[in-house]
Amino acid sequence: MEYIEELGLKAKTAEPVITSLKVSEKNAVLAEIAKRLRRDSAVLIEANALDIAAAEKNGMSKAMIDRLTLTEARIEGMAEGVDTVIALPDPIGSVIGGSELANGLRVVKKRVPIGTIGIIFESRPNVTVDAAALCFKAGNTVILRGGSDAINSNKALVKLMRAAVKDCGFDENAIQLVEDTSRSVANAMMKLNKYIDLLIPRGGGGLIRTVIENATIPVIQTGEGNCHVYVDASADIEMAVNIVNNAKTQRPSVCNAIENVLVHKDAAPAFFEKISALWQDKVSVIGDEAVSKLISVEKIADDNDFATEFLDYKISAKIVDSVDEAIAHINRFGTKHSECIITSDLNNAEKFQKMVDAAAVYVNASTRFTDGFEFGLGAEIGISTQKLHARGPMGLEALTTYKYLINGNGQIRG
Amino acid sequence: MEYIEELGLKAKTAEPVITSLKVSEKNAVLAEIAKRLRRDSAVLIEANALDIAAAEKNGMSKAMIDRLTLTEARIEGMAEGVDTVIALPDPIGSVIGGSELANGLRVVKKRVPIGTIGIIFESRPNVTVDAAALCFKAGNTVILRGGSDAINSNKALVKLMRAAVKDCGFDENAIQLVEDTSRSVANAMMKLNKYIDLLIPRGGGGLIRTVIENATIPVIQTGEGNCHVYVDASADIEMAVNIVNNAKTQRPSVCNAIENVLVHKDAAPAFFEKISALWQDKVSVIGDEAVSKLISVEKIADDNDFATEFLDYKISAKIVDSVDEAIAHINRFGTKHSECIITSDLNNAEKFQKMVDAAAVYVNASTRFTDGFEFGLGAEIGISTQKLHARGPMGLEALTTYKYLINGNGQIRG
Repeated sequence: MEYIEELGLKAKTAEPVITSLKVSEKNAVLAEIAKRLRRDSAVLIEANALDIAAAEKNGMSKAMIDRLTLTEARIEGMAEGVDTVIALPDPIGSVIGGSELANGLRVVKKRVPIGTIGIIFESRPNVTVDAAALCFKAGNTVILRGGSDAINSNKALVKLMRAAVKDCGFDENAIQLVEDTSRSVANAMMKLNKYIDLLIPRGGGGLIRTVIENATIPVIQTGEGNCHVYVDASADIEMAVNIVNNAKTQRPSVCNAIENVLVHKDAAPAFFEKISALWQDKVSVIGDEAVSKLISVEKIADDNDFATEFLDYKISAKIVDSVDEAIAHINRFGTKHSECIITSDLNNAEKFQKMVDAAAVYVNASTRFTDGFEFGLGAEIGISTQKLHARGPMGLEALTTYKYLINGNGQIRG
Repeated sequence: MEYIEELGLKAKTAEPVITSLKVSEKNAVLAEIAKRLRRDSAVLIEANALDIAAAEKNGMSKAMIDRLTLTEARIEGMAEGVDTVIALPDPIGSVIGGSELANGLRVVKKRVPIGTIGIIFESRPNVTVDAAALCFKAGNTVILRGGSDAINSNKALVKLMRAAVKDCGFDENAIQLVEDTSRSVANAMMKLNKYIDLLIPRGGGGLIRTVIENATIPVIQTGEGNCHVYVDASADIEMAVNIVNNAKTQRPSVCNAIENVLVHKDAAPAFFEKISALWQDKVSVIGDEAVSKLISVEKIADDNDFATEFLDYKISAKIVDSVDEAIAHINRFGTKHSECIITSDLNNAEKFQKMVDAAAVYVNASTRFTDGFEFGLGAEIGISTQKLHARGPMGLEALTTYKYLINGNGQIRG
């Protein structure tokens, strides 16, 4: 049996018991994990040092090494993340529908765990604990496949979590790590329909596309955000500048930051004057011809620029004739993540919210609010940019499904 | 631009208006389709005759030719199907969540159409109208790819439906047919993520596997049903015989018919005596060694038999020592469709319903009830055997998603 198939079989074998755990049992395991993270932080930092040494040897950038590094404070942050998951209400077991049919059959639609979830992610080791805790709280077994850069950290973290599961009296294969980080094993994992029910990639666009192109397992596409703000003719210009500035610069590296501003021609002179006075050289603007006549631009924007998620202090800008042109542009170039209109015109606000195809469509607020914590989900496994199963910020409920329980007394179909 | 990409672009272009239609507008189009089906039945039968002639020339089996044939009565059945869809409540626009956040942002979670749905199906032309009507009622544009055997019938049906859409004043590209039925076009369609949001295959196991293996678009897996009845030690034997007989023989060719009976060793002698007296030669039994000692079997069952969906008057049978053994067998060989326990033991009933991983888990009733109409959904686009998005019978709601509408007055993230 192939290596990854063994992991799959172990997860499926653990599944019937794990999916049936009571909330008190699940929370006890999670509390044990949080306790050990705090207690064994030195062990984790030691393992992490191996990854850091290898990264330095391989010439990894300082920013990337920083993302990879575990410190006491960051491990405390992980433990606090687990505490947060413990505090979340258990979505499992709630009855979400049902009825008694004319023939006397009683049908109950009940929320249940998905089963086994595969997470494929890049080198931030905090994802390891975060994803495992959320999957476990929703009653799932999880197979984690992190990047090779963090393999020693991930081994130590998963060892710690498995020991916690085991010492609480349950099958440690509820949480597994793919220790062989070769590409061929990752590819085999993406086709393990027999054992894995759902695959969630967490990382950059390249990773996500690789998973979508190779997986035969159902995937939830997350995290790509080519987001826009459209400044309408009727916009309060001060509010527009404030929101565009926040959505672009408060944290440019995240998916709910904007990459483009569309401005109605009537609002353009005032808007661009103010925003360029505010930004000066802080944000580089790639504008269309019309924008370039108002402010200085880095280059004239082409379709490729409009399709780019810069994740940087850089923005594309375009002047449009109408809200319809803005909507068409967004539906062409957007990634269905978060989109915003700044307006004081009720019709345009409603039209924009109706016609723009995205998980979150804002009127007069920053796109930066698209987030599980901000939306009150308590935690987040990712932000879905597809339309199936879950859209936008995904909390615990996105890690569940339902089943129909039907009780009768001998009914047959005529 | 490739042929299929042109179709995709046309669907996406039609989408903003189609997804925004009012229920009265959608029902007017559907009524026009039903009216024309009845009025133009002669035209449809003429087009269908071309497919029948080709099928006869190609030596298609009588049963398959029968499935392909359109008659006045069958066209009336299609029109009645559309009438049923008209009568269904519109799922679009309902508010399914939301709250006012501490910062004053008002969040509304609203049900919206998915967008563009691709349906890949085999040669029954009634699927063409049925699938188009359901997708349209849920506010989606649809791209239909039927089999080459039914191409003339499908062209005539889709021409009729497009004319109805157009004459009601809307973009006829709401409903499109892939007229080039080559495999390469089908494969390109399965990777058209840019334009198609969801792919639903409707047909046999081969078709479904091809779609799952090739598609990069999210797919809902439907229709494979390797279903079981487990007869517990405490079962009412008469009820068990009655249900097993119904689930196997009332309509063996459908996915919610059973393919296997598992019988507790204590119930086995009485059960097998009665069922074999009832069935005589009507149903061929492939049993394990223990079964073969009680009744005559066609052959001794192996794992391959246990994994087979016969869709025929044929059943595999196995004697087990416990409900746990039955659950393990079902979770190993089942397709997560419909499973049943016959028992009078409350603990075993609850254990079975909790531990068996399937869309519909029955106590003391025939698996044949797993059906959108029986479950009160009013209609059905298929029965999902995966866990993402929709599980079990899928009605109109399975053809929708949601979006978050967020209204503020200048909120930015701190």
